[in-house]
Amino acid sequence: MRDVAVIGVGMTKFGELWRSPLRDLFAEAAADCLTDAGIERSQVQSAYMGCMTSGLFNGQEHLAAILTDYAGLSPISATRVESACASGGVAFRSAWLEVASGASDFVLAGGVEKMNDGADATYCLSTAADQEYEVYHGVTFPGLYAMIARAHMHKYGTTREQLAHVAVKSHRNGAQNARAQFPTEINLDTVLNAVMVASPLGLFDCSPVSDGAAAVLLAPAEVARDLGKPVVKILGCGHATDAIALHDRQDLASIPAVKAAGDQAYAMAGVKPQDIDLCEVHDCFTIAELVCLEELGFFPRGEAAAATVDGATGLEGTIPVNTSGGLKSKGHPVGATGIAQIVELVEQLTGRSAKRQVKNPRLAMAQNMGGSGGSSTVHILEVSS
Amino acid sequence: MRDVAVIGVGMTKFGELWRSPLRDLFAEAAADCLTDAGIERSQVQSAYMGCMTSGLFNGQEHLAAILTDYAGLSPISATRVESACASGGVAFRSAWLEVASGASDFVLAGGVEKMNDGADATYCLSTAADQEYEVYHGVTFPGLYAMIARAHMHKYGTTREQLAHVAVKSHRNGAQNARAQFPTEINLDTVLNAVMVASPLGLFDCSPVSDGAAAVLLAPAEVARDLGKPVVKILGCGHATDAIALHDRQDLASIPAVKAAGDQAYAMAGVKPQDIDLCEVHDCFTIAELVCLEELGFFPRGEAAAATVDGATGLEGTIPVNTSGGLKSKGHPVGATGIAQIVELVEQLTGRSAKRQVKNPRLAMAQNMGGSGGSSTVHILEVSS
Repeated sequence: MRDVAVIGVGMTKFGELWRSPLRDLFAEAAADCLTDAGIERSQVQSAYMGCMTSGLFNGQEHLAAILTDYAGLSPISATRVESACASGGVAFRSAWLEVASGASDFVLAGGVEKMNDGADATYCLSTAADQEYEVYHGVTFPGLYAMIARAHMHKYGTTREQLAHVAVKSHRNGAQNARAQFPTEINLDTVLNAVMVASPLGLFDCSPVSDGAAAVLLAPAEVARDLGKPVVKILGCGHATDAIALHDRQDLASIPAVKAAGDQAYAMAGVKPQDIDLCEVHDCFTIAELVCLEELGFFPRGEAAAATVDGATGLEGTIPVNTSGGLKSKGHPVGATGIAQIVELVEQLTGRSAKRQVKNPRLAMAQNMGGSGGSSTVHILEVSS
Repeated sequence: MRDVAVIGVGMTKFGELWRSPLRDLFAEAAADCLTDAGIERSQVQSAYMGCMTSGLFNGQEHLAAILTDYAGLSPISATRVESACASGGVAFRSAWLEVASGASDFVLAGGVEKMNDGADATYCLSTAADQEYEVYHGVTFPGLYAMIARAHMHKYGTTREQLAHVAVKSHRNGAQNARAQFPTEINLDTVLNAVMVASPLGLFDCSPVSDGAAAVLLAPAEVARDLGKPVVKILGCGHATDAIALHDRQDLASIPAVKAAGDQAYAMAGVKPQDIDLCEVHDCFTIAELVCLEELGFFPRGEAAAATVDGATGLEGTIPVNTSGGLKSKGHPVGATGIAQIVELVEQLTGRSAKRQVKNPRLAMAQNMGGSGGSSTVHILEVSS
């Protein structure tokens, strides 16, 4: 298999983008990405688009074909992939495989979701859970993650105040990201006094409903070197699944698919958690960030909460987490999230992150998750000049 | 890239399967496939599932994770791919790439759709067309293909009687297929006197609304040889896209994405149309079979209709087409169709098709199409003992 690099990134602002149709969001991100890469549309040979449920949100399937057409890329091979909120991460993995195989040189990996389009977002998102055994009985995603949070509190003594620190940290980073949906700092009182959604998770423990798109261009590492830019190589890739229903798992305070995907990525890359310089994790809810950090080995189980309060995951901490603002502050157009994480990491690794820049990072990780953890991808990127 | 072979196939009966949930359909096909391959569940490393719109039909996304779990394959990497009615073909291509790359040895490619589950099938299927510029104005799929038929009639003199011969031929084959939804012969009068759906397409010019699943297992060709069975190698793969809205195309009597995908597959395989011994094409409507046969080079433009009447596409003809009964007689659970085509070809190439067996075929082609031709895959398989 060939070494593969990311040679260009692009994304829209995330937010309530009522004036932008689904197809325009993707076309904008793809155009930005190709400009950044310095590659012509005619050079792109294949594309993968992550999207969770344009069928339910927008009444539009056959998605890769229409997005490819409006991005000016037809008649290339184009594949839409879906793994709920991990759709972007899975699109990135698919694009990596196609370049690694030697079948294509320039492959676009994109993600898009337009959640503000009139549909019932709570219902649309619930389709990432088990319809027959969870959703029919009234559970929604805040409810599922609230159960994970309660289990974590019970087992490890995690507190509501500690969860609130995750949101405060994410907004502090997101306030420096012009593309964030909520680029505003918040304080502990705001989080703790917010309306309760599903106890113990209040409004500021939850990521928002968002529109947006992101795209990255992959090419053989040799080609990236020839372009004379820093080479951001995909060093490790992990992808795992699990039962999507919470009641089928042994321990509600853990998410095994994240650990499995992380272990694969670490093994392929030949690195350990302490080698990683920054990480974007899937903080759809504050509790998710803590559990994922523990599954990925950044902290022992039950210790991510206290470490967050101590500042270990801040910009100046031992492992800066969600420098983009994360899903919480940057926004969470579900199919785009996994690709937007890669955009953030590539910009950080190439020193383009301005006020939220981490100092001289070499290794970065993106962890993207579907539903309540029924699927997860983990990618490790390495920059070399 | 490594040579890749299909080492096992399985599928459910197609039909109105009200007693089988979506997840059970896939689990049944996957189990049959692994039994046929003689491979244990624990040996499967990755899976791709084609499904058009389980979100709209069944309220279930996050599909690959849940299907993998119920098939007993977790925690492997599993990816759902969507390209409307070409979802199965795209899943097959993705699985081929993963084995060809060297990343995995045993990869499952499946397809599933449960269309009889209470949802409005006409609306669900319409999401394969352009929502904003076609569907909002009232067009449905029979209407879109009726426009293609009218254009073909106008340009080439194709007649309604000739279209009817396609359906009669498909049902003649399907009557020999126990897994077909409608395993019954029909005659010309039945087709011509059926209720009109969208002129000139009557009820028997249209494929049905179906439930079903299919699965095939891919492995390196070397591994297939070691198993001591006939080796069915993937010799060519093509995948192309186009505008999904009919009004964006130059000629309604042609479907360029099919020609582009076919040209890619022929070039990769190093073969020509006259080398192909049998072909499964995407006959969602009778007119689609004729246009696809012309795009794939089996007949000059405008001549597929007369050739069908002459028997050229029958079991004893120069190019047997849709020996399975095709989408028309076998049924069309849209996400499963592309994989079910591969099942038919592998069984034909290995001499397992009983009364509908083609004599000593060596090369076979599957063409799977999304929407009104906004995407298409073409695969060429070769058997060697």
